[in-house]
Amino acid sequence: MSELRKDPVIGRWVIIATERQNRPGGNLSPLPPAPPEGFCPFCTGNEHLTPSEVLAFRDPNTSRDQKGWWVRVVPNKFPAMSIEGQNRRIGEGMYDMMSGIGAHEVVIEDPLHDVGMPDMPVKQIEEIFWAYRERMLDLHRDLRFRYVMIFKNHGARAGATLAHSHSQIIALPIVPKRVQEELDGARSYYEYKERCVFCDIIHQEERDNLRIVDANEWFIAFHPYASRFPFETWIIPRQHESFFSDIQINEVTDLAAMIKRALVRFKNILNDPPFNFVIHTAPFTQSESPHYHWHIELIPRLTRIAGFEWGTGFYINPMSPEAATKRILEAQHDIEEAQVGSSTG
Amino acid sequence: MSELRKDPVIGRWVIIATERQNRPGGNLSPLPPAPPEGFCPFCTGNEHLTPSEVLAFRDPNTSRDQKGWWVRVVPNKFPAMSIEGQNRRIGEGMYDMMSGIGAHEVVIEDPLHDVGMPDMPVKQIEEIFWAYRERMLDLHRDLRFRYVMIFKNHGARAGATLAHSHSQIIALPIVPKRVQEELDGARSYYEYKERCVFCDIIHQEERDNLRIVDANEWFIAFHPYASRFPFETWIIPRQHESFFSDIQINEVTDLAAMIKRALVRFKNILNDPPFNFVIHTAPFTQSESPHYHWHIELIPRLTRIAGFEWGTGFYINPMSPEAATKRILEAQHDIEEAQVGSSTG
Repeated sequence: MSELRKDPVIGRWVIIATERQNRPGGNLSPLPPAPPEGFCPFCTGNEHLTPSEVLAFRDPNTSRDQKGWWVRVVPNKFPAMSIEGQNRRIGEGMYDMMSGIGAHEVVIEDPLHDVGMPDMPVKQIEEIFWAYRERMLDLHRDLRFRYVMIFKNHGARAGATLAHSHSQIIALPIVPKRVQEELDGARSYYEYKERCVFCDIIHQEERDNLRIVDANEWFIAFHPYASRFPFETWIIPRQHESFFSDIQINEVTDLAAMIKRALVRFKNILNDPPFNFVIHTAPFTQSESPHYHWHIELIPRLTRIAGFEWGTGFYINPMSPEAATKRILEAQHDIEEAQVGSSTG
Repeated sequence: MSELRKDPVIGRWVIIATERQNRPGGNLSPLPPAPPEGFCPFCTGNEHLTPSEVLAFRDPNTSRDQKGWWVRVVPNKFPAMSIEGQNRRIGEGMYDMMSGIGAHEVVIEDPLHDVGMPDMPVKQIEEIFWAYRERMLDLHRDLRFRYVMIFKNHGARAGATLAHSHSQIIALPIVPKRVQEELDGARSYYEYKERCVFCDIIHQEERDNLRIVDANEWFIAFHPYASRFPFETWIIPRQHESFFSDIQINEVTDLAAMIKRALVRFKNILNDPPFNFVIHTAPFTQSESPHYHWHIELIPRLTRIAGFEWGTGFYINPMSPEAATKRILEAQHDIEEAQVGSSTG
């Protein structure tokens, strides 16, 4: 049985998820063993190898847990947390723990094994984000949960155990530390300025025009001023919205197109690095607020990780976000020139 | 020129250190290129390849920047921060930055290339910790600095660019976020309980006796209750002390012996993983306090890093600290049995 434990000094919760040692590649060796050739539980035709689906976008003439889907969400076979039971908070001497109640699901993003998110049509990425939204709203109804984390690990070095393109959903009885820090920081800023700090960032970025890598009607993508990593990218809605799950149909189209362009840039310009993205949205326990503004943080894994970040919370970034933006925009320009050249030549 | 930039939402400072792209292996490729065979600026005989030493423990008959030393501290050739200039705090629109004033030094831990810290005699590790202390006290005199971070990256996956055993010292005009969180958390605990949270942790660990992996007169080593990583180890003085730099001679002997045993365990039991350690001590700007208690955090890099920790501050640890402790103590016992067997057989 998993449990949540609280660091007694800084108050960070950690999942101690002992079941996960049993998953393929989940042992403590530095790199995961390659899964047996031809075996992939996420491929269409292998639906019986996963737990039964909780959501699928599929041809109406097909049945649950059969072929015919284009996006499929299943419980994680090796969950970090268990869906059964009640939240219990327990003291262990001076320490605090909670029973590891939560949901842990996998979004299988494509029926085919070799299609990565940058290769998918925008329409397919839209469908994936609709699946995220639908699961978030459904998990929202479970009052044991305070937060739903949605994230994607692409590539073994970024934490993915299976090559087949997928993302993960974890519903938690707590608000993760980083999100809580954002909520607290944004509230302080609002109390001082009576403006949303994220809205102010959007205005500042548009005025400076040094770190914006992409923009469309509903979203902008930029390298944040205090980037921790080269090419760290935030994608944020221009309109103030606290909850990702309030996203509208025209926004999803713009978001999917922007995600695709970002991932295609990573693939073409940065040589297909491993990457992670995480959706930051307000916790269930709060209503639409004037200070919190949902967004996506996207990080390509280019640099070796020095490691002392865990001990210090302190990052050293070898490339300024302005230099990274310049590199992206120039490379993008060259690629477009080449495309124009080849189509007219 | 480097600069420190502050995240406008959560207040974390990041170094944007553009000079570091020029160092060997400092480009953005995922893994560092192997340095040319036989070339190592840290080896004895190559003293002319590093900046001039700021400290060396050496034979009194030898000269500065020549052979004859056993621990040598030099400025980093590719520093994250620059020692020249004044701290300036500047607003850039809504953003905050500081000029990147700081010291960045390398502690060369042994004259020979192939000697790792677990292979060194305890006496040599003592000398390394004396060098840390001496540099910390010296940097303390520079009023531009608020904090000195001392850390070690062992192995390329843990962030080391050079194989020759070394550690790093960074003096900063700010207190790193994680240390500030510990200070704040420890102060809140003290206000509530009128006891040091770290002293309470020591008592709790001694009472539970489930997570202690080593103990001697002056220190204990344990896997913390809310460990983020398997075999994450804290080494903490039993006596309440805020500053690492107040360490006494008999304590250094005990500390060096404990560090060596921990690293030998990692090497023998965990198959020589990359690892990091970081010294957490109180900032210069505060005096000895009843709430802060210095310690060392030591993390072997066994698991792949899932990556979403950066986006969430949330960790999933696949092994409980109690199971990790059991595994260490059993393996230690087996090794000692084998040694007794072979010496008496």
